[in-house]
Amino acid sequence: MIGLGLIGGSLLRAATQAGRDAFAYNRTREAVKAARDEDFEVSDNLSATLERAESSNAIIVVSVPMPAVDAIFDMIARLAPQCTVTDVVSVKGAVLDAARHHGLAERFVGGHPMAGTAESGWAASFPELFHDAAWVVAAESDTDPNRWLDVAQLALDCGAFVVPANAADHDRAVARISHLPHVLAETLAIAGEAGQDLALGLAAGSFRDGTRVAGASPAIVRAICEPNAKALLTALDEALGELQRVRESLTEKGTLGDLADRGHAARTRYENVERSPIEGISVGKDGWAEKMCEAGRRGGVVRSLNELS
Amino acid sequence: MIGLGLIGGSLLRAATQAGRDAFAYNRTREAVKAARDEDFEVSDNLSATLERAESSNAIIVVSVPMPAVDAIFDMIARLAPQCTVTDVVSVKGAVLDAARHHGLAERFVGGHPMAGTAESGWAASFPELFHDAAWVVAAESDTDPNRWLDVAQLALDCGAFVVPANAADHDRAVARISHLPHVLAETLAIAGEAGQDLALGLAAGSFRDGTRVAGASPAIVRAICEPNAKALLTALDEALGELQRVRESLTEKGTLGDLADRGHAARTRYENVERSPIEGISVGKDGWAEKMCEAGRRGGVVRSLNELS
Repeated sequence: MIGLGLIGGSLLRAATQAGRDAFAYNRTREAVKAARDEDFEVSDNLSATLERAESSNAIIVVSVPMPAVDAIFDMIARLAPQCTVTDVVSVKGAVLDAARHHGLAERFVGGHPMAGTAESGWAASFPELFHDAAWVVAAESDTDPNRWLDVAQLALDCGAFVVPANAADHDRAVARISHLPHVLAETLAIAGEAGQDLALGLAAGSFRDGTRVAGASPAIVRAICEPNAKALLTALDEALGELQRVRESLTEKGTLGDLADRGHAARTRYENVERSPIEGISVGKDGWAEKMCEAGRRGGVVRSLNELS
Repeated sequence: MIGLGLIGGSLLRAATQAGRDAFAYNRTREAVKAARDEDFEVSDNLSATLERAESSNAIIVVSVPMPAVDAIFDMIARLAPQCTVTDVVSVKGAVLDAARHHGLAERFVGGHPMAGTAESGWAASFPELFHDAAWVVAAESDTDPNRWLDVAQLALDCGAFVVPANAADHDRAVARISHLPHVLAETLAIAGEAGQDLALGLAAGSFRDGTRVAGASPAIVRAICEPNAKALLTALDEALGELQRVRESLTEKGTLGDLADRGHAARTRYENVERSPIEGISVGKDGWAEKMCEAGRRGGVVRSLNELS
């Protein structure tokens, strides 16, 4: 694990709890000390950690914010030239580009566990964070099938289920269900605060829940959303289109139009989303990655590698 | 209680639990039967219920959706000409207008408990719904002070604290912290669903919380938001302005600009909102209603009528 924030820290805990040998690097000494106090093997020496990864044929999990990925990939290229590399960054296209840029493409498998809290840092980490969470393991046309299986097994060991997707599909999807929610939550918080003490004092469940993720650190929100600017813009433009239609309907007729009916139907579909097991795909056979992504698009998930083929 | 939905039903339970004599009317027989099975005094005869209210000098609580308020007020004007009348409708200006229209103004005191769940109906009601919730008791310049105190005491007996506000200030405030959250939640749900099974399957906390209130019945969402169209438009336009600025920043610089910093600051202010006790206002003295509203605007609340003066 390179980086012991909420995700990296929880991953170190979960992988260890699953019986895997796991060790980590972290930049700040406080988290290193705190993790060592709990008997985890953690170093503040990146080079030594990567050399140890190489000599033990470890899977390297890059769990740093997007802005730090380039520097880490550069170090991996130099010090750990054989290891499988994955990541837990919330955007996959930009990380894949960086992996290609640093010559890591053939041993890189993108990853994204869909889990988090409004908290951050090692202190907030806990091993159950991934329990029954979706974990995207990216399948590109040139992804090494054995490395894909290794990364998928890590996700499964941490209690997650695997959703296969390529980077582009992933980024479009998370723009809608993760990045747009952040933008709307920040916007709602600002609009509420403009109502001063009376409005904030009257705020109940709808405002509390609608603004919850605005409690996340601004730096983390930017690091999550900004590398996915293009897909976020598409989702934001759709939302702006809806809001403009509501605006028109409120102005002209004093009504919400069909917004509430369509929103309710959408929320109901989300509540009833079905995750069917992916079967009959032999990882490594011709076209396996495309088949895997197609199955993921239809809502398929992998809960055990044995079920796959 | 006229109407035994989530709010009216919870109010019947809470007032009874507080030791008050309470009885209710409900339009649908199922809820009447269900409430009677729990030994509550409930009738499906509106006229008889209003006549009983008049003969026992009850406070009439109108807990029906906005579209039904006019018809109920009309009946109250005819059958219960002396009773204090309050309501629990989520908009106060339109209800006050209706009260004036039906000649109820001098015995009407608007009310709005800031409590709810995504559920609705008698079956979802429970007496603790108002515990430590804000309950707006509207103070207009012509509000009868004794009736205001009676309605405030009812709110306090149900476990809420009282926030004084006039109808116009209330409506502007709830547009920001209740109606805009509904509009954004519906919009987010629609944008998420457009990402199909992959997006909905990857959705985690931020989408779940951000769309929670889209799970409310569309008819209820419309009944809540549409009577406050004007104030909602103001809040919506502010939100649209923010979103347009983010759009521009994402397009031109690939960044969120200062959205996350301002949103985080706003959420932090909301989390730390202080509710100071209102003191030194003698209800009924010259200018009491204006003083009360001014104190409410500054975040003041009433937790006991004894503390007031």
